[in-house]
Parts: sequence; structure tokens; C-alpha cells
Amino acid sequence: MTVDMNKSRSRSVSNGMDKVVSLAKRRGFVFPGSEIYGGLANSWDYGPLGVELKNNIKKFWWKRFVEERDDMVGIDSAIIMNPKVWEASGHLKEFSDPLVECKKCHERFRADALEEKKCPNCGASEFTVPRSFNLLFKTYIGAAEDTKSTVYLRGENAQGMFVNFKNVLDTSRRQLPFGIAQIGKAFRNEITPGNFIFRTREFEIMELEYFVKKDEWKEHFAHWQKEMTRWIKDVGIDEKKVYEVDVPDGERAHYSDKTVDFEFEYPFGQKELYGLAYRTDFDLKNHEKESGENLKYRDPETGEEFHPHVIEPSMGAERTFLAILLSAYEETDARIVLHLKPRLAPYKAAVFPLLANKPELVKLARKTYDLLRKDFSVAWDDRGNIGKRYYSQDEIGTPYCITIDFDSLEKHDATIRDRDTMKQERVMIEKLADYLSERIA
Amino acid sequence: MTVDMNKSRSRSVSNGMDKVVSLAKRRGFVFPGSEIYGGLANSWDYGPLGVELKNNIKKFWWKRFVEERDDMVGIDSAIIMNPKVWEASGHLKEFSDPLVECKKCHERFRADALEEKKCPNCGASEFTVPRSFNLLFKTYIGAAEDTKSTVYLRGENAQGMFVNFKNVLDTSRRQLPFGIAQIGKAFRNEITPGNFIFRTREFEIMELEYFVKKDEWKEHFAHWQKEMTRWIKDVGIDEKKVYEVDVPDGERAHYSDKTVDFEFEYPFGQKELYGLAYRTDFDLKNHEKESGENLKYRDPETGEEFHPHVIEPSMGAERTFLAILLSAYEETDARIVLHLKPRLAPYKAAVFPLLANKPELVKLARKTYDLLRKDFSVAWDDRGNIGKRYYSQDEIGTPYCITIDFDSLEKHDATIRDRDTMKQERVMIEKLADYLSERIA
Repeated sequence: MTVDMNKSRSRSVSNGMDKVVSLAKRRGFVFPGSEIYGGLANSWDYGPLGVELKNNIKKFWWKRFVEERDDMVGIDSAIIMNPKVWEASGHLKEFSDPLVECKKCHERFRADALEEKKCPNCGASEFTVPRSFNLLFKTYIGAAEDTKSTVYLRGENAQGMFVNFKNVLDTSRRQLPFGIAQIGKAFRNEITPGNFIFRTREFEIMELEYFVKKDEWKEHFAHWQKEMTRWIKDVGIDEKKVYEVDVPDGERAHYSDKTVDFEFEYPFGQKELYGLAYRTDFDLKNHEKESGENLKYRDPETGEEFHPHVIEPSMGAERTFLAILLSAYEETDARIVLHLKPRLAPYKAAVFPLLANKPELVKLARKTYDLLRKDFSVAWDDRGNIGKRYYSQDEIGTPYCITIDFDSLEKHDATIRDRDTMKQERVMIEKLADYLSERIA
Repeated sequence: MTVDMNKSRSRSVSNGMDKVVSLAKRRGFVFPGSEIYGGLANSWDYGPLGVELKNNIKKFWWKRFVEERDDMVGIDSAIIMNPKVWEASGHLKEFSDPLVECKKCHERFRADALEEKKCPNCGASEFTVPRSFNLLFKTYIGAAEDTKSTVYLRGENAQGMFVNFKNVLDTSRRQLPFGIAQIGKAFRNEITPGNFIFRTREFEIMELEYFVKKDEWKEHFAHWQKEMTRWIKDVGIDEKKVYEVDVPDGERAHYSDKTVDFEFEYPFGQKELYGLAYRTDFDLKNHEKESGENLKYRDPETGEEFHPHVIEPSMGAERTFLAILLSAYEETDARIVLHLKPRLAPYKAAVFPLLANKPELVKLARKTYDLLRKDFSVAWDDRGNIGKRYYSQDEIGTPYCITIDFDSLEKHDATIRDRDTMKQERVMIEKLADYLSERIA
């Protein structure tokens, strides 16, 4: 993970955000969290389509970075870890934001995010001196609320990989270079969450720690920088809106000797999308020191023992989700389209009977639907006219619409219409699954 | 979810547990959480094989109960919800265990779990009177630790479905009966976690709320009871060790009018595996009352407005994982085998070159491996002899081992060996993918 800096390199673009937020709510991608109770401080729930898109993003990430590689294993570690982990990692000391309070209205702000000298809440101009505010959520384990039982919700997933480094090494017999990957929730008590799902207190990170020999870190850093670029492209994030920014000294997280931020041109400014950090041997060394366990790697050829150095590509699932929606959204006079990559679309296809009141059409359409849903996530729609159904599927990014009409009854074929080109062609019903397979990959 | 009762119907079986825990650790299924720091209160991390098994369980659940049904949608709601949710749901008041403290050593215990009259820690026999201890984890949101900012980690996923009921209804245009499903973490500050991954403070629930008309609840309850039995069988849990127990009045959770517990014969006793609860209209009614939002369903035919009643099948991912491991484990003089259902096995196949020092064998084996891993999760092993490799793959439940030998070079085929029957047959390399597909489904 990389701590955001929210710095002045932001530049504003005014449009696009409202429309995407509205679509997300209207069609069941993202709902305000606890909405019937007036929400909760910028928390968000993923609806029926949102959970599918988010799951598809996570599955694609796991496939690419774990399943398709010989040098990667996954783990799933606990959110609540031994508090000593956060001492050793430096998070209890360093993982904080400078906080100021308006002397008039007592609203609190991140000092580094306060661009003007006046309170955004009441307009007063006197603030307290900045005070360090730790971002880890605190809770209590067991029956007594005293300091002995204080634990934290993890602020990053990375520590799960470091703490399990030896167990993974012992059980999976890996040699350098190799990585440990994890997808899971992390929590940060952000002072100023906001911008829809961009900055939330509860979020999901797709993250990996790649362990290398010290003198090889630069080539691996370069490899992962390229891999992240390839991912950005393949997942459907508009590359022209992505900027790689070398984070200068003094702005990097406490553990990092080099960080490249992948920033995206959101409608609310150019801000972090992903981070790639060279964490050196900071974490393994500190955990060895604090735990007393040997966390060195033994080179099988030379017998030399040393702490591997670490390259960390870190990608937020929600920011991926947001950047994809923003990149995929297109509005014309005639329609709203989400040009989602087919592999990520909640539905791969929708099946319609041309007319809902013709039982023979409904029957064959239903048969087609049942045939396809064995292998694909498929929608069914028999309401309104075909134009309305296309409109509805375009808006949620369904790449193919399949219509059963009267010709289908004789020829056993269907009209398949492409979301992006809007072109239609006729395909035999028994060939539809292959047709989709070839185009969805 | 169903609150466990830990009642006297437990009966002890002494064997099996240690071996499964040892295998889980040794082969990278489950590691003690934060182990290098001496662990943390019965928390567990899932290693390279464990995360794959757990993900396969979750994917299968989602496929069966969301994707394959026309009457179900998924969501993914936040872990930290507005605290009013837990007032309305009754959890702040009712979701607690009776706690007693030993007057001598001050250790605390669940009063209802204390089977003997003496302290399990020091043997003394005087305890304080039981005091109610709430199981929700508490934390603080924002910059000040006062009561205004107190929030809770969700103690069950169900409330996410209830709070989003209206949003789901509005965006997905469902008619009764229909369900909302979710997989995600929940947290309970259990006084006495234990028995490996059986009872932990952080766990993952696969849960759905099925909304029905009041007078139809019994038939839907019966349907879900059957569906749970079918799932138990298909996921590879030994049905002969599963008992359906009707939970008597006074022992059910506060919201339930009928609950059937699916209990499993663990080595440490017969205890809860899954729960099926009839939650009535308790939750929707209370949320409507507390939030002021109309949470009624409007019958499209009669125009009648009412609160749907709810059937809730709830299945813990970790208990599923544990019951599967216990059911799949077999030890003979010659080998240890995990008879995992192929669809759940971390690896579907392993590919070996007969001899690792023959480049032509390694090359063809590698080609075979690369061919198969496009579609399947496949292991590679070229260490030791074939017998050792079989042993190693049997132990982690890999259903098929594929060996490339000298005959393979001429005939372009391979020996494929079945984990369960240990029978071998020769299959053409280009047919291997189909061979696996047919058997894995």
C-alpha cells in the first residue's frame, strides 16, 4: 500500500462523476452504505451488479498474478493480527495524518489537504497546531476493555505476507524470486474520506509482495511497473488518463526507498490509482528483530542467508472499479453505454424473446437462456420492446444481446447484437456458446 | 446466522483432529495467525493451498445459490454499518453471552459452556454471578474517541441484506419469492474461541435471506433444508456425520421462530455446522420502525403492501472448510489422502516428467503443464521419485497425476493416475484437457 498524499498536483476536471454515481445507484452497482439510516460517513455497499463486477475484477487479478505465474502463491490472512505486528511494521508510530482543528467550529481536517487558509466548514481562519492522528482502527479483544486487549484492524494487507513469510517458505519450497499475493479488506480511519468510492475507511486491496535479491530489485521493479501497465490496459482503464509519478523523497511511506504512483485523471482531479513500492528489507528485518524468529532466506546454491528485498504492487479493488466505470462510461443522444471489457461485465449476454406474448418465442428463448447460463452469467428480459431492452443492457455493460424471433423457430438461430458496434448478425443457437467464449476470454 | 449453544448434546470423539491440524499446517492450508509473535487468540491464516480451497468453496456456493438461480441476487455490503442498524436488529441488546469470572484466578468463561463446577484454569469452584457480555466488536470512527463515533464490526452479514432490501427491490425489480445472498467476513468477540478454525472471532459467512409471503414460509423452509442437504453432499461433507436438530424454544436466537441446526460430528463433539432460521418479518419491521423508511413489498397483482417473511440459510466458510477436511482425510499404512471433490481441490492435476534429468521428458512435461494450466489449476513436480510425488499430491487432494515418460515421446500420450482408485490409464496429451473437464465439473 502507499499512503496518499493528496498533493497539489491534482488538476480538476468537472464532468462525468455525477453521471457515473447516478448510474451506479440507479442500476444496482453501488448503494450508499446503511442508506435507510442516512448512510455512514462515506461507506458504500455493492449491489447485485456491483458485486459481480467487483468479483470479476478480483478473479481476473488472481488469475493473472497468482494462477498464471509459476512464481506466486496466494494467502488469506486475518484482519485482526497480533498488535506487535503493527509495532514492528512502524504503523503504530508512523501511520498517521497531521490533523488540525478549526478553533471556531471545532471541525477537524487533514492539515496537508487544507488547500486554503480558511475553514471549509465555517470560513474561520484559525486552526490548532497539527497533531498526529493514527489511522489504524482500534478495538478490544476478549472480555475486558483495557490496554492489554487492544488490537487493530489491519491498515494494509502486506503485513500478512511478511508475518507468514517463513510458513510459506517452509511449505511451498519456493526459491527467489517469488511472491505472495492476497486480496482482502483493510481499514483506515481516514479523516476526510470522499469522492464516492475513491477514499473510504473500509476497502479491499489486491496486493502482492515480491521477494528478490537486493541487487536485483531494480529489474524486478521495472518488471512490475510494466505488469501494472499491462493490467491497466487489459482491465479497461483508459491508459491516456493514467500518469506514472515518481514519488519524491520525503513524501514516500516510511518503509519505502522508491515509489511510483499510478495516478488517474478522475473527474475530481488527478489522484492515486495504484502504487508500486520498493520496501527494501525493512519489514522482514523489523519482524525478525521484534519476534526473534529467523526470517532470512537461505540461498540453496551458495548457502548464504539474507533478508530478501521486496517489491510491492498494490491495487485497490474499489479504485479499479471506479476507474473502470469512468473509462467505460459513454453517453450519446441515443443511449448510455458502459464499454466494459466482456470478461468483467456482470452479464456476458442477455436473452430476449422478440415478443413476450408469443409462447413459442418465449419457450425457445428460455431454452437458449438455460443453455447459455450453464457456462455464462446471462440476463433474461421480456419486458417492453427490443429498443428498451438494448438500452437497459447497454447501460450495465452487457456485451451481447440475443433475440429469438419468428425466423428462429424455423432456422434455430438468433440475432446477436454487439454492444459497442451495435451491429447484428445471425448465429445458430447451438453455436452461441462458442461465439461468446471466443469473444469473452 | 445462528448463535451457537454449545449445549450438552455434544458427544466426544477422540481421534482425527490432531492429524488434520498437522496436515493443514505442514502443507500450507492453515497457519496459526501472527505465529511469529506467538499467535493471537485462536486466529488463523490461510496459506497457499488453504486460500485456494476456501476460494473454491466460496465460488461453488456463489455458483449454486446465486448464478444458477433465477430468484437470487448477490450483494457485498460494508462491515462497518451505521450503529442504528444494530439497535434495530436487537444485537446491541440481545447479542450477548452470559459471562462468569473465577473468583480465585479471575479467568472469565461463558457460563453456559462451563460443564463442570470447577474453574478449568485453576480448579477453584467459586464464580461471580453471570454478567451479560455483548459479542459485537466496538471501534471508533473519525478523530474523536467519544460515544458519538462508536461503531461496530458486523456480527452477522444478514443486516446488510435487510438494510439494502429496498435498494435491491428498486433496482432489480424482483417479485416474491426472491433472495439476497452475500459472502463476507463477520466478527464476534467470543469468550471461548477454539477447536482450530471451528470457533474464531473473525470468520466468513456465506449467507442468504430469502423473502417470502408469510403463509408460504413453511414450504420455503423445507426447500432450503433440502438445498442445504444437497450442498453438504456435493461439497464432500460426510452426510453420515450430519444431524439436523430442531432448536427448541428458548434456545433460538432472539429473531427466530424456528431454527434447524445442521450439526456435524467433529472429533471434539457434535456441534453446529450450519443454521437454517425462519426470521419472520422481525428485521424488516424493526428497520422500518427505526429508520422511518417504508420497507414493505407491494404485490404487483393484488396491490397489497406487506413485510415479507424471511428464511435464512447460513453457512460458515471455515466450518465448511473444516468439515470437508475431516470428511476427506484418510490415512492408511501407505499414504495419507484427502479425498476432496475435484471441483474444490486446490490443484486439479499435477504434471511430472518421469525423470528430472532427461531434458526431452522435462520439455514435453512442461509443454503439457503449460497446455493444461490455461484452463486448470495445475501443479508441477520434478523432485524425488514418482512414488514420493504421488504421496505428496495425495496428501493435498490433487485428483489426477499426469506423468510424461519415454513412451510419451513417441506416442504423445501420458499416464494419468486417479487419486482415489490409484488406477492408471494412458491418455493422449491433446485429450487431457477434456479428460479433466469431464471429471471435475
